[in-house]
Amino acid sequence: MQAVKLKPRAEHGDGDSDGDGDHGDGYGDRAAALTALRDAFGARVLTSDAIREQYGKDESHHPSSPPDAVLRPRDKFEVQRIVQLCAQHRMPVVAFGVGTSLEGNVAALAGGICIDSSEMKQIIQVNAEDFDVVVQPGVTRRQLNQHLKGSGLFFPIDPGADATLGGMASTRASGTNAVRYGTMRENVLNIEAVLADGSLIRTAKRARKSAAGYDLTGLLVGSEGTLAVFTELTVRLHPAPESMASAVCVFETIKGAVDTVIQLIQCGIPVARVELCDALTIKSFNMYSGTDFIESPTLLLEFHGSDAGVREQAEATQELAHDNGGGEFKWTQNTEERNKMWRARHDAAYSGKRLHPKGRIWATDVCVPISRLADCIEATRRDIEESKLLAPLVGHVGDGNFHLLLLVDHDDPQEVARAEALHRRMVMRALDMDGTCTGEHGIGQGKIDFLKLEHGAAVSTMRAVKQALDPHNIMNPGKIFDQKS
Amino acid sequence: MQAVKLKPRAEHGDGDSDGDGDHGDGYGDRAAALTALRDAFGARVLTSDAIREQYGKDESHHPSSPPDAVLRPRDKFEVQRIVQLCAQHRMPVVAFGVGTSLEGNVAALAGGICIDSSEMKQIIQVNAEDFDVVVQPGVTRRQLNQHLKGSGLFFPIDPGADATLGGMASTRASGTNAVRYGTMRENVLNIEAVLADGSLIRTAKRARKSAAGYDLTGLLVGSEGTLAVFTELTVRLHPAPESMASAVCVFETIKGAVDTVIQLIQCGIPVARVELCDALTIKSFNMYSGTDFIESPTLLLEFHGSDAGVREQAEATQELAHDNGGGEFKWTQNTEERNKMWRARHDAAYSGKRLHPKGRIWATDVCVPISRLADCIEATRRDIEESKLLAPLVGHVGDGNFHLLLLVDHDDPQEVARAEALHRRMVMRALDMDGTCTGEHGIGQGKIDFLKLEHGAAVSTMRAVKQALDPHNIMNPGKIFDQKS
Repeated sequence: MQAVKLKPRAEHGDGDSDGDGDHGDGYGDRAAALTALRDAFGARVLTSDAIREQYGKDESHHPSSPPDAVLRPRDKFEVQRIVQLCAQHRMPVVAFGVGTSLEGNVAALAGGICIDSSEMKQIIQVNAEDFDVVVQPGVTRRQLNQHLKGSGLFFPIDPGADATLGGMASTRASGTNAVRYGTMRENVLNIEAVLADGSLIRTAKRARKSAAGYDLTGLLVGSEGTLAVFTELTVRLHPAPESMASAVCVFETIKGAVDTVIQLIQCGIPVARVELCDALTIKSFNMYSGTDFIESPTLLLEFHGSDAGVREQAEATQELAHDNGGGEFKWTQNTEERNKMWRARHDAAYSGKRLHPKGRIWATDVCVPISRLADCIEATRRDIEESKLLAPLVGHVGDGNFHLLLLVDHDDPQEVARAEALHRRMVMRALDMDGTCTGEHGIGQGKIDFLKLEHGAAVSTMRAVKQALDPHNIMNPGKIFDQKS
Repeated sequence: MQAVKLKPRAEHGDGDSDGDGDHGDGYGDRAAALTALRDAFGARVLTSDAIREQYGKDESHHPSSPPDAVLRPRDKFEVQRIVQLCAQHRMPVVAFGVGTSLEGNVAALAGGICIDSSEMKQIIQVNAEDFDVVVQPGVTRRQLNQHLKGSGLFFPIDPGADATLGGMASTRASGTNAVRYGTMRENVLNIEAVLADGSLIRTAKRARKSAAGYDLTGLLVGSEGTLAVFTELTVRLHPAPESMASAVCVFETIKGAVDTVIQLIQCGIPVARVELCDALTIKSFNMYSGTDFIESPTLLLEFHGSDAGVREQAEATQELAHDNGGGEFKWTQNTEERNKMWRARHDAAYSGKRLHPKGRIWATDVCVPISRLADCIEATRRDIEESKLLAPLVGHVGDGNFHLLLLVDHDDPQEVARAEALHRRMVMRALDMDGTCTGEHGIGQGKIDFLKLEHGAAVSTMRAVKQALDPHNIMNPGKIFDQKS
């Protein structure tokens, strides 16, 4: 973990005694950059401490690193103008959605300009016949699905938080529905973006597939703002299922629940969501949401399909659950009950906090091949016990991805040290199992060293791409790679 | 179209009068490179004219450009050694599968060393529980599916030819099954590859998803050998369907067939294959394969699922076809009949040739949003009529992708000119419709100018990536980008 916290004082200039344009930190004259931005955008350049502080932080445990200023462009040309001015003055640029990232991905580690997408929330064009939609990056997933109501289409990717599509593309988000519908990698058709040199590109046309040159869409999805600022995205839509049902199934052991999931996937049952919650997580739901779930390892499931198909899937799942020691299998097609269940799941981070008065959530994010998932979770549980930490476990287990919501008092260095040790053990185990240190949160500032362990020589390849597209390292510096690289 | 054909004479050296290491063409001393390779690989460095000629060509209309030598490495370390020696001597490197590409992708435009993967055909590890398999790049799709028989799993991507997985990843291939199972983009989990500097990287772990850094897998898939030589791939497998059925449906008009497909996709029927053949294509099938299909626009379909599911899908499709003027809907679950039908379809390129005694096939490859497909095909048919060319039309219409198999006598400059004009019109129309110049064949040497029209400023971004990872342009030069870039 990196704890660097810079507080650039742009307003007072930062000197350049040798006149080489480098102001000590590799960047240009911040005051001059702000002046240029004010010339272009006037009072829309926001620099109050309150606003800067607000935009320096996401929902993670990483400390705030405020930008020098915040701007809220209204269209792609304004984004381009901002980046051009920043490029000219070698000023860092950090794109911001709604700040729900979990690895300090939006903190302005080197100061600079935060480009907030909150005034770019237009749904530009629903192409119902082509199952896609063109949006501005500030559109959130709930806003989009609200807009699509009645169209017979929906956008499935659901990371829990009501994140922006720009942010979700940026971190290659996925969440509860990915087991059936894929992640942002599979659901972004093209991106329009401003690069570090101020040029505006579009990564692909709107055809469902293409073999025309390098897959720049794929390159930008998951690049965490280190290569470009997005100005428009085209994402895939899916037919709204004719019928939906959800189910809750309680198990005596975590292993029984995980084995059920593994068999479910291996049987090819097209489950839409399958979430594991351990007993502690369920306890926190009951405390926070007033639910009355049995406090035991639990699977939350959702099935999409025709009426008959949904029933068939649920029955097959129930049988598998029974074979693995599952207890009562409660299923419902009632929308309200379904929503209540998923609301509890989505609030896991908030409810988890209740378990530890001084604790802040530190969310881990390993993902392993599904054949190794049961072993991985078992070993993790032993680690948690030894660590004496409070750590509810939730997981998108159909993907082999699970999170601990580590509850850590960040003022207690020993607790922090134990959390770090536990996290490291988890990541090393996931890598040993041919898994990854992050299934969906991204590298941000928290997993830079793990990226090196995971990818080895390939990190140099990533760095070469970064260097080629952003030679002055103005795009979200200090994320994915060390700041000085 | 580029018709440059270099015949480097490596054996005689190529001079370097000013001693700057540059032998006039940006590359090093070819004779010295060959000597170094012979020191390492002895008589395995193949330089006979017959072999060189064979490896300078694929199945396209592009002329042969033979490499200076061919090598057949047996493992990743041998690949790495070859690339390292080539890097040292600035010698071009062209990776070769079985030569079924369609845009001159494997021609050694600047000579150099052809790395043939025919001795890297090991299926390294089937991870049945994880639905993936690790293979060497020379494994072909039929070899893989033969190996998987009885495992309950299969590899769906099917471009027609029995291509290697390395080659398919390289061109981002797709084919008849992509409408249901995706393209190579969605089905390659990770790649191990040697870069231009001789380093060996692996792009990802084996987890089903990851948010760890840039998506190098996506960057290499579709890079056509211009960034790396693949040494190992992990690809996704899918559950072999419980039941399969195929169907043939004849239409009075192409429009009726295309509208049926559009509605099929829009209704969310998970059809596994849906191929359009125009009357001329069907005629060529009958001539070549002795089939007795009615010579009218035809859809060839395949359904995968449970017994009941397959029947349900076929019935729904039949109804749609009927509404769009479809005639008899013949469906079968008989494997032999099914294979016969798909064999005819796969042989389309060979049967097409029969229509024109002097004609060689020039396969076009546009792909448009499905809402524009009917218009696009209609306009294309008018173009064909005006062009007076023979041009059977086949298409993976569920993706919005279709091909003309232009039959062109390449010794007739007027016929070539008419083909070029027709092709250009098709591409410009596809771009106007927000489509792409290539759905699955890649840019190769034939579509470099179209790539610029399609991607505009983004081509500079691709070029910057190429420049960063292959600064001396030794990896398959002259493909995707102009040779001198």
